[in-house]
Amino acid sequence: MGSLPDADDHVDVLIVGAGPAGLMMANWMSRCGVRTRIVDKRGTKIFNGQADGLQCRTLEIFDSFDFGHRAWIESNHMLEICLWNPDPKTGILTRSDRIPDTIPNISRFQQVVLHQGRIERFFLDSIRENSIRTACNGPSSDPEAAQIRVEHGVLPTSLSIDESLVEDTEAYPITVTLRHLTEEEATPAQKATSGNGQAVQDGIFRSNLSADDTADLIRLTNSLAEKAGRTETVKAKYMLGADGAHSWTRRQLGFTLQGDSTDFIWGVLDVIPITDFPDIRMRCAIHSEASGSVMVIPRENKLVRLYIQLTTTNQDGQGAQKYDRSQITPETIIASAQRIMRPYKIEYRYLDWWTAYQIGQRVGDSFSSKERVFLAGDAVHTHSPKAGQGMNVSMQDAFNLGWKVANVVKGLSNRSILKTYQSERRRIAQDLIDFDHRFSRLFSGRPAKDVMDEEGISMEVFKDAFEKGNLFASGIAVDYGASMIVAKEGSGKEQGDGTEVLGDAKLRVVSKSNLATGIEVGKRMPSFKVLNQADARPWHFQELLKSNGTWRVVVFAGDIRDAEQKKRLDMLGDKLGGESSFLKWVTPKGQRYDSVIQLLSCHSAPRRETTIFDFPEVFRPWDDREGWDYWKVHVDDESYHEGHGQVYKNYGVDPKHGCSVILRPDQYISWVGEMDDYESMESFFKGFMVDQRTRDGAKDAVANNVANGQEKEVEESRKALYSGTLAGTNGLRNDAPAIDAGDEAVKGTTAM
Amino acid sequence: MGSLPDADDHVDVLIVGAGPAGLMMANWMSRCGVRTRIVDKRGTKIFNGQADGLQCRTLEIFDSFDFGHRAWIESNHMLEICLWNPDPKTGILTRSDRIPDTIPNISRFQQVVLHQGRIERFFLDSIRENSIRTACNGPSSDPEAAQIRVEHGVLPTSLSIDESLVEDTEAYPITVTLRHLTEEEATPAQKATSGNGQAVQDGIFRSNLSADDTADLIRLTNSLAEKAGRTETVKAKYMLGADGAHSWTRRQLGFTLQGDSTDFIWGVLDVIPITDFPDIRMRCAIHSEASGSVMVIPRENKLVRLYIQLTTTNQDGQGAQKYDRSQITPETIIASAQRIMRPYKIEYRYLDWWTAYQIGQRVGDSFSSKERVFLAGDAVHTHSPKAGQGMNVSMQDAFNLGWKVANVVKGLSNRSILKTYQSERRRIAQDLIDFDHRFSRLFSGRPAKDVMDEEGISMEVFKDAFEKGNLFASGIAVDYGASMIVAKEGSGKEQGDGTEVLGDAKLRVVSKSNLATGIEVGKRMPSFKVLNQADARPWHFQELLKSNGTWRVVVFAGDIRDAEQKKRLDMLGDKLGGESSFLKWVTPKGQRYDSVIQLLSCHSAPRRETTIFDFPEVFRPWDDREGWDYWKVHVDDESYHEGHGQVYKNYGVDPKHGCSVILRPDQYISWVGEMDDYESMESFFKGFMVDQRTRDGAKDAVANNVANGQEKEVEESRKALYSGTLAGTNGLRNDAPAIDAGDEAVKGTTAM
Repeated sequence: MGSLPDADDHVDVLIVGAGPAGLMMANWMSRCGVRTRIVDKRGTKIFNGQADGLQCRTLEIFDSFDFGHRAWIESNHMLEICLWNPDPKTGILTRSDRIPDTIPNISRFQQVVLHQGRIERFFLDSIRENSIRTACNGPSSDPEAAQIRVEHGVLPTSLSIDESLVEDTEAYPITVTLRHLTEEEATPAQKATSGNGQAVQDGIFRSNLSADDTADLIRLTNSLAEKAGRTETVKAKYMLGADGAHSWTRRQLGFTLQGDSTDFIWGVLDVIPITDFPDIRMRCAIHSEASGSVMVIPRENKLVRLYIQLTTTNQDGQGAQKYDRSQITPETIIASAQRIMRPYKIEYRYLDWWTAYQIGQRVGDSFSSKERVFLAGDAVHTHSPKAGQGMNVSMQDAFNLGWKVANVVKGLSNRSILKTYQSERRRIAQDLIDFDHRFSRLFSGRPAKDVMDEEGISMEVFKDAFEKGNLFASGIAVDYGASMIVAKEGSGKEQGDGTEVLGDAKLRVVSKSNLATGIEVGKRMPSFKVLNQADARPWHFQELLKSNGTWRVVVFAGDIRDAEQKKRLDMLGDKLGGESSFLKWVTPKGQRYDSVIQLLSCHSAPRRETTIFDFPEVFRPWDDREGWDYWKVHVDDESYHEGHGQVYKNYGVDPKHGCSVILRPDQYISWVGEMDDYESMESFFKGFMVDQRTRDGAKDAVANNVANGQEKEVEESRKALYSGTLAGTNGLRNDAPAIDAGDEAVKGTTAM
Repeated sequence: MGSLPDADDHVDVLIVGAGPAGLMMANWMSRCGVRTRIVDKRGTKIFNGQADGLQCRTLEIFDSFDFGHRAWIESNHMLEICLWNPDPKTGILTRSDRIPDTIPNISRFQQVVLHQGRIERFFLDSIRENSIRTACNGPSSDPEAAQIRVEHGVLPTSLSIDESLVEDTEAYPITVTLRHLTEEEATPAQKATSGNGQAVQDGIFRSNLSADDTADLIRLTNSLAEKAGRTETVKAKYMLGADGAHSWTRRQLGFTLQGDSTDFIWGVLDVIPITDFPDIRMRCAIHSEASGSVMVIPRENKLVRLYIQLTTTNQDGQGAQKYDRSQITPETIIASAQRIMRPYKIEYRYLDWWTAYQIGQRVGDSFSSKERVFLAGDAVHTHSPKAGQGMNVSMQDAFNLGWKVANVVKGLSNRSILKTYQSERRRIAQDLIDFDHRFSRLFSGRPAKDVMDEEGISMEVFKDAFEKGNLFASGIAVDYGASMIVAKEGSGKEQGDGTEVLGDAKLRVVSKSNLATGIEVGKRMPSFKVLNQADARPWHFQELLKSNGTWRVVVFAGDIRDAEQKKRLDMLGDKLGGESSFLKWVTPKGQRYDSVIQLLSCHSAPRRETTIFDFPEVFRPWDDREGWDYWKVHVDDESYHEGHGQVYKNYGVDPKHGCSVILRPDQYISWVGEMDDYESMESFFKGFMVDQRTRDGAKDAVANNVANGQEKEVEESRKALYSGTLAGTNGLRNDAPAIDAGDEAVKGTTAM
């Protein structure tokens, strides 16, 4: 390892910004046991206003971290979109259409709304639980102290990257200076919760401030007082700038946002509406004849968010640039809504938050510097809030990045996979900006009077765009391009943002998509109900895919009563269970062989005619202390209380033939192939996984075991290692595994 | 009010015992804002072993308190029961049958298993949240201090009831002396978690000790040290003895448990099994030829509970009384299991907890003294643990009692309803004891060799009993007898435990059950999915019936496009909304008219052809600050993502005619009648509700408003009231409402 360079602290990952993107990254790191700090210059949490829409896909991700149900329970569910337009004959505002808000059957969740403060709370709780659990399994004697905590009121003041070290997996090439602010510096004026939003002080929702929030605020105030004015230097292996649209990190790297703004100005009100408009608890798109549009987003706690157009393109022919923004108040905004929504009346006595904005779409020119410092969220894409995408795409940036960084830091993957972050997520950002551009213009336009009215927006076109946009907005349509971790045909550059990500051509494998027509390589794994073979419990398949950093090989073994299928299964079992199996060489010494790549199976024989003992042992791992593993073999059969998932039918897999699937740690589909095509699976993993056979010693095993919470077989070596004094403030010391130079020769796959 | 008698503290309710029954009671009180203390002589919480099965009905109840999902997520779900018996021909143990563990479609939950420590944690969290919320709406400046907290290490040493005061609603007739134990006194020997159970020390599940549990333990230790040796006198209006099978409270009252024991001795092991038995993750009933029986209960955290018969009736003709109980160890118990389960092998390396017990069934002779001191749980019924009933029935005792006491304490109901506690729950206890008696004997018997073997148990009879027992065991079959709060025909004495509970014959109403064949008076309201009219969101009907202490009138208005139905609805709306409506006279001054009795509706016209404005205003209450209430009108229609609840069909209600239903605060059905039969509804409520019109002054409104968290209109009067210094240690002062003597004349319904 050598001695560490001079610094006050060393971390694997430093995160700047504790909004949804930064918290998602910290959450991944806490799950994977990676030594991490997360700082934010703000002294306070957000308690109202700001982003609020949660896509189906975001809820699936939350569920993979075990807090999907919290968002689901607390949020307002949006089920139907009502389109309101002037009646063609009378010109009176009328409901012209209803469409389902979430397309039926694309996800087990539907789009919901919940304010950002609650979502941040779920992350904070999750990070706390994860890091305490990790610490309990590690050397720390004080799990509370070992937590990854958001450090508020901490401002980065300098950033440097030692370019000579960026390819050294052991090095800390990033140096950041942090300054601890005083309470005064860290606390913006009481009424402003963000740069462009105004919170209105009102006691009514004080009871929503959970006990945890209160305790955090007290701790924060003490912490600020204690450290105010201090400066420290931190060395990091990796860094994430998730510091918003005005990103300090982006500016240090010299990167820019590219794009433009429109003339349209919109106001936003979060109110409890008093109205006779019958659809106020539906999501509504309301186009008036000539006064602009309103979007209604019903929220939790009786609140409704109204997006209200303040300028229209044909306003005196002058355009919105001349609009006097200092004139915008809640009163002028609601007056505009009243004009748009007449003959219905709308007013409020409780206003929770308000703001106004001008629509703009911009995307960053680069998402990463040397695959060492990354950018995510508003730092690399900004757009209009109405489609409810911002927070979702930001969190999904970090969800895409987190497992990759964790796997590299832990010495399981080589650095080449990090290039896929920009390739995958910058492309998504570009798509988002295109979508928002089209959508916003349709929304801000005036309705066409008739088919001859070319300047107006046809309501048929609008409805069609809304329906198509719904699939995009669900987050389910995301389709990552070909790369070393997505085995599909075509150009990785064209399918991504132009970055080269295919890796070693000799190892490239391509999927046989016809074997599973419902499992699309590059997209997230769809979910249907399967039954656990051993206890008959129904699970949504995605529930088996928790975000813990492991890859998965899923074997759809088909009807194993069929002798041919059984034989193929047994032969595959021999290879997967053999000493030279890739399951084993990707696994650090001392860990169970499914710690890095987990093996799941789902067969289609009747549950009652089968037991787990019909499967080769590798599919139901043995443990000397706990016996067989009963939670890996599943079956496509009818449940007693929750119907029949029909997974073979829904995944488009032939029960007489089966298939195998490789899933990334983020549930995206890497590869579909023949059920028993062990060789393609191995070739795929050789493309980027580190061969652990040539790595030595107890230290690596310990570092990785601590992270995975698997401890028993390395108890003694751990004791020997940690008997000295611990360095670092976190107690969660995670000595990085050394990779022998010899590794490179064995792998031969570094595609940097 | 007069001055209070001498005492160190005055509470509305004192609870002795903080097991599941005591915690359920405290939870109700915290929901309803009733000043409560709960003490327990134990210094520690239970962390493993003990009761673990949760019925469907218990999960429904948990859900009504908003923590059903926590139990559902953490628990092991049991889906299938496998019956194993000697093969009639070979004598080899074989799976003879499979039956669903929970009967399909009786509940939206299924039976699950989770250890008692977690369930107590859910209650503690719920009590904390409720009492902080209540305190936030009340006069206390320190919500943390206002919490109802379990006071551990506190032993009651004397109990007296002033019989002259028992009918005085303002009085505190109960005096209890409490002694605060030293830590040594409060902590039993480390290894014993209960009188008859042994916890095995092992670090493996230490990580299950949640952060909250840790914090509680630290607080508890400090609290014990501070108060050790102190004695105090507490005056209470009501008291619950939930202090277990050796109940101190029961002995003070001179009540006894009646019943007997069998000869059978059973051992219990909680282990991680190492076995080749294929159904170890199913609930199994295993009868061996001559070595006795095993019941397998798969649990959370890879654990399995094994109930293992140690003696059989024909063991040397001596009976179990001669069995040397000191010889029972985990080794002897597992050896017995190995004999019963051969040819399968079973062993373990991790043992979590073990115990042994002799089956006995006993029930208390009385559940209440003067309807002032009540008994619940093991204090009044004990039986074998195998049917998983104990904890459920205990919690349901307190669930039945809690809302009744809260409504009486708050001056909403008169004391007569308290008699229904014994009538309803003692009858349930008797039924439980009968069930357990039959079930245990069938289970402990040896299988019949053939039809001529009269001493053996026929496996057909056993399976039949198991299936029938399943409905009983679900808790769904509970059917409370006729009383002033259950409007059905027949003798209240016969349908209950013999107590007279019918009340004033002049006010008695009887249901028209034919109007809703799926809604059975006396049983809990079944649940199907309805849609919210205003936002199209599907809800299970039970989700609308949260446990907050309110009664509900549910109007099934049918197809309101039909002019006749619409007319009936409007006329009912006029009466319910009128100034003399019972909704209003049951409501304390200053509260909204649905604070005591909530009005819900569900119609059957198409959702898209209807809005809430088609309903009279009383069905969608107006609020000057928040506009219309969008959460009270529902519709039986198809949802976008969760199917069609078919509630009219499932409830057996004719859409062309409709009906109305009165539901108790515990979701049990009180009355079914004509949709527009306002008069019967009023007569029903006159039977036991207090007329608030003749009660005076701001104080009552404040006391009740504090409890209900509704504050706005009584802000001024509250300020005036609470400007003085607060008495009491809880800060949650709840000055009891005074009831004018004149009230009695108006009500004329006291049926004591």
